[in-house]
Amino acid sequence: MSILTDELSVINAGLPLIVEGVPAAQVTQLDWRPPAFGDADVARLALTLDNEVTDAANAVAIAKVHAVKPQLTRIRPAREVMPGIAEGRTLLHAGPPIEVERMCGPMRGALIGATLFEGWADNADDALRMLDSGEIAVAPCHHHGAVGPMAGVIAPSMPVLVATDLDDGRQAFASLNEGLGKVLRFGAYDSEVITRLTWMRDVLGPVLDRTLEKYGPIDVTSLIGQALSMGDEGHNRNVAATSLLARRLAPTIAELEPNSDSVAVLAFLAGNDHFALNISMAAAKLALDAAIGVENSTLVTAMARNGVEFG
Amino acid sequence: MSILTDELSVINAGLPLIVEGVPAAQVTQLDWRPPAFGDADVARLALTLDNEVTDAANAVAIAKVHAVKPQLTRIRPAREVMPGIAEGRTLLHAGPPIEVERMCGPMRGALIGATLFEGWADNADDALRMLDSGEIAVAPCHHHGAVGPMAGVIAPSMPVLVATDLDDGRQAFASLNEGLGKVLRFGAYDSEVITRLTWMRDVLGPVLDRTLEKYGPIDVTSLIGQALSMGDEGHNRNVAATSLLARRLAPTIAELEPNSDSVAVLAFLAGNDHFALNISMAAAKLALDAAIGVENSTLVTAMARNGVEFG
Repeated sequence: MSILTDELSVINAGLPLIVEGVPAAQVTQLDWRPPAFGDADVARLALTLDNEVTDAANAVAIAKVHAVKPQLTRIRPAREVMPGIAEGRTLLHAGPPIEVERMCGPMRGALIGATLFEGWADNADDALRMLDSGEIAVAPCHHHGAVGPMAGVIAPSMPVLVATDLDDGRQAFASLNEGLGKVLRFGAYDSEVITRLTWMRDVLGPVLDRTLEKYGPIDVTSLIGQALSMGDEGHNRNVAATSLLARRLAPTIAELEPNSDSVAVLAFLAGNDHFALNISMAAAKLALDAAIGVENSTLVTAMARNGVEFG
Repeated sequence: MSILTDELSVINAGLPLIVEGVPAAQVTQLDWRPPAFGDADVARLALTLDNEVTDAANAVAIAKVHAVKPQLTRIRPAREVMPGIAEGRTLLHAGPPIEVERMCGPMRGALIGATLFEGWADNADDALRMLDSGEIAVAPCHHHGAVGPMAGVIAPSMPVLVATDLDDGRQAFASLNEGLGKVLRFGAYDSEVITRLTWMRDVLGPVLDRTLEKYGPIDVTSLIGQALSMGDEGHNRNVAATSLLARRLAPTIAELEPNSDSVAVLAFLAGNDHFALNISMAAAKLALDAAIGVENSTLVTAMARNGVEFG
């Protein structure tokens, strides 16, 4: 006993629990893990950081993220709210920048679909030629304050959800969720897909926008908070958020004219358990964007993949 | 060791865990609990039962309960679907039978409200006089295949939820949930309460009935099953079942004429987190009723209180 408590000094080169019985003052714990999980480049970079300064900056950045209370304010055509794609022929896609010929099949398919949807081409071959030749420009959603699920393709005529920070006026955007089955975000572009996108542009977007104008903004933090407590995880389980939102907006939707559009919109919301997914995406984008530009912060504010690369 | 394993016989007069270390074959466990938790009458009654026969009968009864798949089929005026109250002046109440003068305040209040709602009296004093004199008859909901929350008062003109067993045509009934605040089921009977009940009779009930006729029956087991997995417990938490149901029925409700009624019904469903409560009540009543009359079964198929007694 006296050896352990008074005279022994322990250097532990393993997990801390091995020396749990030894008074902490007598233990020197070796940091046995390789720096930066063994990535030499990252380890070198980390050496250049002043931890105290970085930690303080990251605390500021995280506080900014947490302070954002995203409001779903409008649902407007992308070209109206995203000035960068208002003119010319630009399509947005998920993840970091990538040339059309290097894209994966589903993303190329989604870009073909968006080209047909915009009426820039009459068939898939022409669409692909225009995309490959650069006649139609492509850019990441993230370069325009937007996010999209899977292929994440946003075309100028598509209605987008507008998440707004009412404190500073910042906005973030996301496409509307199409539901499951044959959909653009998985790379499908046949007439079923284009017909649905056209209906979403002409009916769903305008009806929901008029609904929001009348009802007022939706507090997304509150909506998603309640939905998480009801089993949603906000990615593949969105039935609570979608049901709560649809039930709340239904009276306002039903009041709009023509009534047949209201009925069709309510039927779409009733049949698409994932409608609220894209709302959380826009809100998350808005929240993370708040941390951009905090000096000395190492917080990563966007992670995304385009099917080929991760950025 | 050899004593414990080979020669010892143990009689245990306490909790089984005391002799956990002794091989089970060497232990005689005394049933130290008083029969029927110390209730001598119940204990005497239990002695008259043949356990084997009773257990088999109870297994049959429980299987019958589990086999019921309640469907919400209609929402009709009580007098139309509950023949026992079609004629004369009868009001139903929660729990076992009780005379009006012995009832608790909230139940008397609810009966006054129902009397005013039916137009049988112009004021509370007259209503109470008619109730106390027996001019208006009272009977338990359970005597008419029905259930109601709290005071549980059902009047002949009130719309009731009809839960149906499509296999054998059996039905069970429950009043529609009024929401929170000043409501009949808590004994309130001022003009706010009567106005809402009148609207429920003239608009909510008929609109939802036409909706069900068009949409088809609602499988209550499936609805409540999903809602339980989303955090509802079916008593004070009904937001998931209410939201799932409202979202599903909204397109059909919105299609009905006049549109202003649809809007009002959707607004009521959006503002009442407890609407689905009474649906589970009718479904539970239908399921338990299936076990009535199983010979030798001791399964209790209804437990209810009227604010004074439990039956």
